[in-house]
Amino acid sequence: MPILPALGDSVRKREAMKKITSFVGGTSGAWRILSMETVAGEPLSLATHLDILDSNLSENFSGNWQLRGSRSYERYTNHEEHEQLIQKSPPLGRPEANSAALIPIQKTDLWWQLSQDERRKIFEEESHHIEIGMAYLPAIARRLYHSKDLGEPFDFLTWFEFDSKDKLAFDKLLKELRQSKEWTYVQREIDIRLVRS
Amino acid sequence: MPILPALGDSVRKREAMKKITSFVGGTSGAWRILSMETVAGEPLSLATHLDILDSNLSENFSGNWQLRGSRSYERYTNHEEHEQLIQKSPPLGRPEANSAALIPIQKTDLWWQLSQDERRKIFEEESHHIEIGMAYLPAIARRLYHSKDLGEPFDFLTWFEFDSKDKLAFDKLLKELRQSKEWTYVQREIDIRLVRS
Repeated sequence: MPILPALGDSVRKREAMKKITSFVGGTSGAWRILSMETVAGEPLSLATHLDILDSNLSENFSGNWQLRGSRSYERYTNHEEHEQLIQKSPPLGRPEANSAALIPIQKTDLWWQLSQDERRKIFEEESHHIEIGMAYLPAIARRLYHSKDLGEPFDFLTWFEFDSKDKLAFDKLLKELRQSKEWTYVQREIDIRLVRS
Repeated sequence: MPILPALGDSVRKREAMKKITSFVGGTSGAWRILSMETVAGEPLSLATHLDILDSNLSENFSGNWQLRGSRSYERYTNHEEHEQLIQKSPPLGRPEANSAALIPIQKTDLWWQLSQDERRKIFEEESHHIEIGMAYLPAIARRLYHSKDLGEPFDFLTWFEFDSKDKLAFDKLLKELRQSKEWTYVQREIDIRLVRS
């Protein structure tokens, strides 16, 4: 006799699935794509618009591509950095933040085979990733989505929102990060720039 | 005109999806379930057998439940521990390892809101999680699957394989871990014991 799963599980699973966000590139959406630059690795096919959906899409979606990520817990920040980030980070969706960037990133197998302390050392002590990002707060709002465990082609989806007057500052932020030791472990990166439709 | 996704992406995605493993509880499978004990939180519905599939099942599966997890990178081990684990860890599937345990675990929100260094401190310096597990190698083979980012009801699926003569040692290992400070952050845990069908 088959035994049905406990109701609580399906309810909890539905709740948890909301954690997964889908970035769908297609011909319509809340954001208009200005440019898609392949910084490293294989390109992503072009799209004119992007939609961000708080759900886990099925294989049947109407866009040209979908990239999925999960809001997750912090992997490298220590307690002090964590507190500073909470204090300085602006929310997404600020009315003045009319510009955005979606930068999907994939790191090398070598990176993932490093131990936690080795990755932390490269990430912050040698590359100052948190420190650099912090210098651009609150102007550049940022959210990280984790994709690696989802079996996605990218490991992370990084999302940034800012006032278009801060575009040069944002370019400078990226330049600093891309010159860091951490970035020698990046094997695929697409820089997608957007404005609200 | 719709633009098709690059072929490379779908190939890479298929490859990556193999990383996700499904544990399916039902009425048939390679492992026979001896017991399912709810250690904390809500129970999981009973099943008599378990199958382990190297794939991401759709919503239409034939078992009573499926739990999915991703083999991922290490979150807490430092370089020295990492090297020791590689050296001491046996492979899965040893002929003499006729017994197994699947222990899905969910931790509290409080745990996930801690910073990386706070979690590491509780995990190892205060709870000796790696040290305790290491003491039972190579008898108790172990593999961790990450489920949290997948929107699953559990955060981890822990899988252990051992010779049935080492069952008491395995019980002792669990007892030590469950008495640790880390375990005060566990809010749901099911202890599923199995033998090869």
